[in-house]
Amino acid sequence: MSKATIVLFSGDLDKALAAFVIASGAAASGWDVTVFFTFWGINVVRDDNKKALNKKEFVEKMFGSMMPNGADKLKLSKMNMGGMGTSMMKKRMKVKNVKSLREMIKDAKELDVKFLVCDMSMDIMGLKKEEFIDEVDEIVGVGTYLKESKDANLTLFI
Amino acid sequence: MSKATIVLFSGDLDKALAAFVIASGAAASGWDVTVFFTFWGINVVRDDNKKALNKKEFVEKMFGSMMPNGADKLKLSKMNMGGMGTSMMKKRMKVKNVKSLREMIKDAKELDVKFLVCDMSMDIMGLKKEEFIDEVDEIVGVGTYLKESKDANLTLFI
Amino acid sequence: MSKATIVLFSGDLDKALAAFVIASGAAASGWDVTVFFTFWGINVVRDDNKKALNKKEFVEKMFGSMMPNGADKLKLSKMNMGGMGTSMMKKRMKVKNVKSLREMIKDAKELDVKFLVCDMSMDIMGLKKEEFIDEVDEIVGVGTYLKESKDANLTLFI
Repeated sequence: MSKATIVLFSGDLDKALAAFVIASGAAASGWDVTVFFTFWGINVVRDDNKKALNKKEFVEKMFGSMMPNGADKLKLSKMNMGGMGTSMMKKRMKVKNVKSLREMIKDAKELDVKFLVCDMSMDIMGLKKEEFIDEVDEIVGVGTYLKESKDANLTLFI
Repeated sequence: MSKATIVLFSGDLDKALAAFVIASGAAASGWDVTVFFTFWGINVVRDDNKKALNKKEFVEKMFGSMMPNGADKLKLSKMNMGGMGTSMMKKRMKVKNVKSLREMIKDAKELDVKFLVCDMSMDIMGLKKEEFIDEVDEIVGVGTYLKESKDANLTLFI
Repeated sequence: MSKATIVLFSGDLDKALAAFVIASGAAASGWDVTVFFTFWGINVVRDDNKKALNKKEFVEKMFGSMMPNGADKLKLSKMNMGGMGTSMMKKRMKVKNVKSLREMIKDAKELDVKFLVCDMSMDIMGLKKEEFIDEVDEIVGVGTYLKESKDANLTLFI
């Protein structure tokens, strides 16, 4: 069985889309796929309907509010143009029958893509376990990512 | 035989240069190399002398005109400074006898690097087959990229 | 024995941190790890206490002074906000007992991570061998990186 591991470091819409197109494409062809969400990439799996139960420090709240809160809030890495480019891109995707990022995330889960969130990033950014979407399987350290990558055919950092 | 697949997602000059230095370096050492141009990266293989024969919608024309049209128009991802940094970098490359990106692309083709363009990106960006440089071998889906990556020694996302 | 090669193309603090967390994580688990510093990434291994002995041309001096001089000068790729975001991130890392990039670099060396600097990038940027930190093992071409990557389990471009 083929295997792929993807580090999703970026919290940009375009890069997240690329990650999920590759992840789901591989999973649909029977590959074993793991996405490791780290640094800005953990914003991709934040759930804007969930709130942390634990109290947060001031800086944590600030970080949390400045970073995009989930898949629908991400912006393009280029040509965002105050949001106009991002919304144009979303419209083009609809016109061309390309699914939204949120739908891609659901599809990926149905195809058994594994969702791992980096514990160190979560901690530094001041996010809590309770704030992620249900698709997230586990909060893990880099060691778990490395173990998964050991026998992978395809390893990407996005 | 060793094998490498490179996703060129970025349309920045510096990242495209890195991709082609690695691609041609590997091909020159006898590796089988595939570059998969996706998202902003498809701008790297646009031909500014070619025009799409099919009519384009307004939004497609707009997208097309806002994105860099081919290898000579790309900018640095950092220190572009209104174009000054990019032109300084190009001068430095000449002084140091490093080939231009356009020349690197030609060299890569002569070394049998395979050029694949992502069909979904082409579609979303509103570009047409007729607008790419002759070095492009095929317009394909992510499945083709995955098949090529399955037995690759080196897999990069740039 | 497992093996990883990482191209560190970026000179951003966040990406350099990610590279070293993965590099040291792997090396600590007994992997053979090589980091190939190229393009903006060579700024990560500049030593701000060292000066080039050879005379530099005007453009080389300019490039050198505009790019970040070493691990302590790097900025976040996002949310830098005139340096405020970067210093907030550094504080968060301290609070959460995450080591600084400079300490991570030392740790990586102690774990026998190999530090290779790209000769072409050094040349274009106008940097000299004498300006790098002691952790750097060798100045090499892309061919050396490729040889290392041939039998690697994990290959990343950061």
